[in-house]
Amino acid sequence: MISIKKLVICGVGLIGGSFALALRKAGVAKRIVGIGRSPESLAKAVQLGVIDEAASSWEDALDGADFVLLAAPVGQMDAIMQAMGPHLAPGTTVTDAGSTKRDVIEAMYRHLGADLAHVVPAHPIAGAELSGVEAAFATLYQGRKVVVTPLPENEPAAVLRVREAWEACGALIHEMPPHDHDRVFAAVSHLPHLLAFGLVHDLAGRANAEQLFDFAASGFRDFTRIAGSHPEMWRDICMANRQALLGELDQYLAELAYLRALLLSGDGTRLEQHFSDARRARNAWAEKLSSQTDPAFVAE
Amino acid sequence: MISIKKLVICGVGLIGGSFALALRKAGVAKRIVGIGRSPESLAKAVQLGVIDEAASSWEDALDGADFVLLAAPVGQMDAIMQAMGPHLAPGTTVTDAGSTKRDVIEAMYRHLGADLAHVVPAHPIAGAELSGVEAAFATLYQGRKVVVTPLPENEPAAVLRVREAWEACGALIHEMPPHDHDRVFAAVSHLPHLLAFGLVHDLAGRANAEQLFDFAASGFRDFTRIAGSHPEMWRDICMANRQALLGELDQYLAELAYLRALLLSGDGTRLEQHFSDARRARNAWAEKLSSQTDPAFVAE
Repeated sequence: MISIKKLVICGVGLIGGSFALALRKAGVAKRIVGIGRSPESLAKAVQLGVIDEAASSWEDALDGADFVLLAAPVGQMDAIMQAMGPHLAPGTTVTDAGSTKRDVIEAMYRHLGADLAHVVPAHPIAGAELSGVEAAFATLYQGRKVVVTPLPENEPAAVLRVREAWEACGALIHEMPPHDHDRVFAAVSHLPHLLAFGLVHDLAGRANAEQLFDFAASGFRDFTRIAGSHPEMWRDICMANRQALLGELDQYLAELAYLRALLLSGDGTRLEQHFSDARRARNAWAEKLSSQTDPAFVAE
Repeated sequence: MISIKKLVICGVGLIGGSFALALRKAGVAKRIVGIGRSPESLAKAVQLGVIDEAASSWEDALDGADFVLLAAPVGQMDAIMQAMGPHLAPGTTVTDAGSTKRDVIEAMYRHLGADLAHVVPAHPIAGAELSGVEAAFATLYQGRKVVVTPLPENEPAAVLRVREAWEACGALIHEMPPHDHDRVFAAVSHLPHLLAFGLVHDLAGRANAEQLFDFAASGFRDFTRIAGSHPEMWRDICMANRQALLGELDQYLAELAYLRALLLSGDGTRLEQHFSDARRARNAWAEKLSSQTDPAFVAE
């Protein structure tokens, strides 16, 4: 089983904090050090027992470290790697929890190029609307998927180490090329977020916004739940993955243009067929999912 | 308190069946007769004790009836009213549970014009993905909104009677002009359904659909929950309210065009502002809602 002498978490929020708690609980990590942009949040993490100490510099943090998780919003990854790069000892395993991979990998090539053999990109498909270290819990990754997107330069032992760390958190590991990862998540995650933010923004700007929200019910609540997500995090994700996201958005706009034409022409038969196909696919997915996962469903 | 000697429910599914169960439990309805297109479903309703008997003709059903609820999909309302019209005795209170109002009201004028004083359109904002009489339960309307959209011809006593019937089910009554009703629900209900059906249809048609669904998580699940709704019912609603829905769709397409432009130009600042405004509106709504309603949230 994997053993980590000194684990460094950069960005001790829900994602990084839960990783720390899970690895401590599993007996994998002996000493856990946090680093990040907010001293208050790090102090809180120490107080809550999520990390043992807060490092005030990358030099201190990386001294003797054998495993590093970068769990900051993807928009900060470039600056973080630039700062840590010069202090990284060869052989230290580095991974990340970024929601997009192409941009994070570009930053890895720019700043961690000296030892890419041990820098293994990954993305845990877990999370919640709640953020911050107070929301972290040891079982967040239990039964959840983690997508590992290895680099051609990666040493198999380093990939295995990252897999084992996530497995120790209870996660199910999938490997995928980074490009596929970004296209898949543009479709099933990033686009829905954009659409939900857009709908709420659209309605909130109306003269009768109050009346509209007064009569919005559970369908609207669920449809727009992800519009309660963190704006900065989702700005970063959308910007980082905007090429794939634009492709998905354009395909969806073509879908809406077709539905619009059906409405305009009053073609109820095709409209029902369309709804019926969608319902069948949706229900088949939901059934497969509920048979695969525990009741506390996979969040992202 | 309102008292009903003979209640007639046309369409004894989730909506009609729950109305029957609630009024029986409240001691309001003495005898409850069902009518509908499926004899099997009516037999089931008798077996479950939701209705006392099934009528095989409108003549039988309306004989001695003092309150009629039309709870069929809106696409069937015209044919239903055409069939019932000749057998309706003056003074019988008639209401409906249609999700759209303009089209239902047009059918009322066409077929029930002889006694519009007692024909009061309404829309209970309740429901679930589950449908059919097996899904009906007496407390479905507890704390839910019912929108009553009276006609100029309505006698105040008839409006009051419809209000009191729904109040006896535990519902909260709102009055609104029919046109406003259809615009509000196009925005907060019909459009989100169209968007969810569209997204699932779009993804289900891809060559890598299986992979996409494999990595879809809780955000996707909630966003697309309403794509599990009944295709025929939603075809009817979309067709009946297509003018208002097209207006909402076009406004949303303009919103997406703006978001697309922000992505294309890489304008992260405006994108974050947009997300942030949406999140604030969504959270304010969700807070207000949770302070108003019981934990078993308003469904539609």
